[in-house]
Amino acid sequence: MIGERYTEVRALPEKAGDEVTVSGWVETLRVHAKVAFVVVRDGTGLVQCVLPAGEVDADTWELGTTLEQESAVEVTGQVKPDARAPGGHELVLRRLEVVGASSDYPIQPKEHGVDFLMDHRHLWIRSARQRAVLRVRSELTQAIHDYFHREGFVRIDTPILTGSIGESAGTLFSTEYFGETAYLAQTGQLYVEAACPAFRKVYCFGPTFRAEKSKTRRHLTEFWMVEPEVAFADSEDNMALQEDFVSYLVERALERCSDELEALERDTTPLEGVRPPFPRLSYGEAVARLQEGGSSIEWGDDLGGGDETELAGMYDLPLFVHDYPKEAKAFYMKENPEDPRTVLCNDLLAPEGYGEIIGGSQREDDLERLRARIRAEGLPEDAYEWYLDLRRYGTFPHSGFGLGVERTLAWITGRPHVRELIPFPRLMNRLDP
Amino acid sequence: MIGERYTEVRALPEKAGDEVTVSGWVETLRVHAKVAFVVVRDGTGLVQCVLPAGEVDADTWELGTTLEQESAVEVTGQVKPDARAPGGHELVLRRLEVVGASSDYPIQPKEHGVDFLMDHRHLWIRSARQRAVLRVRSELTQAIHDYFHREGFVRIDTPILTGSIGESAGTLFSTEYFGETAYLAQTGQLYVEAACPAFRKVYCFGPTFRAEKSKTRRHLTEFWMVEPEVAFADSEDNMALQEDFVSYLVERALERCSDELEALERDTTPLEGVRPPFPRLSYGEAVARLQEGGSSIEWGDDLGGGDETELAGMYDLPLFVHDYPKEAKAFYMKENPEDPRTVLCNDLLAPEGYGEIIGGSQREDDLERLRARIRAEGLPEDAYEWYLDLRRYGTFPHSGFGLGVERTLAWITGRPHVRELIPFPRLMNRLDP
Repeated sequence: MIGERYTEVRALPEKAGDEVTVSGWVETLRVHAKVAFVVVRDGTGLVQCVLPAGEVDADTWELGTTLEQESAVEVTGQVKPDARAPGGHELVLRRLEVVGASSDYPIQPKEHGVDFLMDHRHLWIRSARQRAVLRVRSELTQAIHDYFHREGFVRIDTPILTGSIGESAGTLFSTEYFGETAYLAQTGQLYVEAACPAFRKVYCFGPTFRAEKSKTRRHLTEFWMVEPEVAFADSEDNMALQEDFVSYLVERALERCSDELEALERDTTPLEGVRPPFPRLSYGEAVARLQEGGSSIEWGDDLGGGDETELAGMYDLPLFVHDYPKEAKAFYMKENPEDPRTVLCNDLLAPEGYGEIIGGSQREDDLERLRARIRAEGLPEDAYEWYLDLRRYGTFPHSGFGLGVERTLAWITGRPHVRELIPFPRLMNRLDP
Repeated sequence: MIGERYTEVRALPEKAGDEVTVSGWVETLRVHAKVAFVVVRDGTGLVQCVLPAGEVDADTWELGTTLEQESAVEVTGQVKPDARAPGGHELVLRRLEVVGASSDYPIQPKEHGVDFLMDHRHLWIRSARQRAVLRVRSELTQAIHDYFHREGFVRIDTPILTGSIGESAGTLFSTEYFGETAYLAQTGQLYVEAACPAFRKVYCFGPTFRAEKSKTRRHLTEFWMVEPEVAFADSEDNMALQEDFVSYLVERALERCSDELEALERDTTPLEGVRPPFPRLSYGEAVARLQEGGSSIEWGDDLGGGDETELAGMYDLPLFVHDYPKEAKAFYMKENPEDPRTVLCNDLLAPEGYGEIIGGSQREDDLERLRARIRAEGLPEDAYEWYLDLRRYGTFPHSGFGLGVERTLAWITGRPHVRELIPFPRLMNRLDP
């Protein structure tokens, strides 16, 4: 329907013997006395184009042997099976045209510093490794939608601009909004909770914002999060949903992104065993385990990154740590009836040291308890009146979680830094391009 | 896997004769001398529950006959086929428990003013018509992802926070960003253009922002837009993609949302004929048609809303109006080689008076022409240097478009005002809930 003038490189195996026209960008050029090899990337794959000196006119030879990296070209030739060529086919050229020249392309086949690459992110994404991770991201985000659609969830697009606020007031971006102040959402959770009585199972999936002065490899100021919420589901149901969902995502990446994971040199062996059930440790058990290992941690202390790594290292699967002390967690989490010092919540820690990828909880559904928590946290009660209404008019047990896309992708692709896992990362010191 | 304690209402037809437990919210209650009828909504459907006075204990009868609207309940009973019941089955109750009471629910089965309903949006979305439109929205957004995934597009999540700016500086929200100023994106287009050389066919889909002081039924300050971009595609290819895509969306809504469209009393006859090709009028032809109809419009004038309605009214299908005067359109559109007064662009006007749902164009791929346009518009050239790089390093013909989700949904559902077509609308005077 579109671009019928061109054959996509990924379709070349079906075109052996045919004459086709391909358009794309020059990745590499090798010139020998009698033949030149131009590798063209068209966005769907790479194809080696063979330019035989004796079979094209002098102008075409001259043009083909002086091509610079990233020049846009249109090439016409015959598709020839060749086991040595990437993709198993090469193109024997009859015609070559430069559509858009390129000279002094900034990114060369050598090591560049990270700042340089980030300054040139709009070009860097053309590189092999960046293409691979962003393809996995695209498949993963589709898988997220497919999973919830299949399971009967209704998608609720929650607002970015909000008068009320999410988790912690200290890390909010704000904007002037026709005389009022609007905050950029840190979560869509409060809104998906409101949608539960309409649709039972709902989710949102979009960008979220944290004005955190963090410069770690695991922080972005703008990142994507998927947040399902289920009515009449308790904390156990919630963990069951999480392990099923995460296993689906891993399976889908293994099934559909094997080329990309190979290009990224990801050892997929640890991923292949990821299926429910995942191991579970209560916070109390986790503290005891750490103490057995010689840690001086005491009940009530927050688990640090090192603690999480140590705990996760005890298992080959993602690990649930559940029922944390109330003080460590957000105001909306439900008090644990069996131990009121704690709340019904969980983190999910990825294996292999990739850290937390999910935070989830059963929500406080008691009006007075919730109001007390809002007051205790010093949050503006007025802004939460509509949220309290959900406890006034037919309150119900419900649970949900948030999965961070970039952190999950870090684990699946085996890439250490989230800045490569979103097309145009936003960091404390990075707003361009 | 989750909520196995409960049977979903949509699954009741498979459970005839079984005893099941359903959880949900009370929609209506009718009490007769010997029997009461409670309609329960569980988020997947409605079920009529029959409470026979003689067969339950006095406490259950008392509880069941005093239920208030939107109380959360858990009910257990036998599934009995009944042709008169909504859904074809009713539940003969043995047990009834109130999970969360509700009294004085603000939204009553009477007419409320729009401001009142918007103030209670977090509750209003539980109502039948709102549930119907939001279900169509959920299916439509999944259809958007499914279409592009099937067609081999790579999804590129473009940033909301941006240092450079989009179309018109006058309607930007801004926020302080660690000592810099960031703007909320009006479009992801510039970024998907950058991703074309990596993946050929790409798209973004997310919220976009306009700080417009508009109070029409067609404006939101935050709305969702899907923006595909295709390398080596010209303006004709672009329109072919649009008509195929829009036809797919309409077909999918007809196939999978027939109950919702019926609940909305949408006459689907006009939608059933929507398939390619769509009629095309150049801007010049459009002006001539309007003049024939007695309009005083002259070449170069912008088409107003009334003009668009008149033009669209001449056809049963969505109408392309293409190649507008350069002055009326954004700086990045490619000059029309056959008439340099115009640019290679199109709007797509929905039939039945629903107005513009798409704006698209072939992009200016010539470095010097693009720079000249940026200067002529008084835009900050520095901020566009990375965008200009795309024309420095292997420039290529490419085209794309943006489809507004809420406007498309207005047409498909037959609802006049976009404020009902997004879960939590943001308008000039509306930031809560």
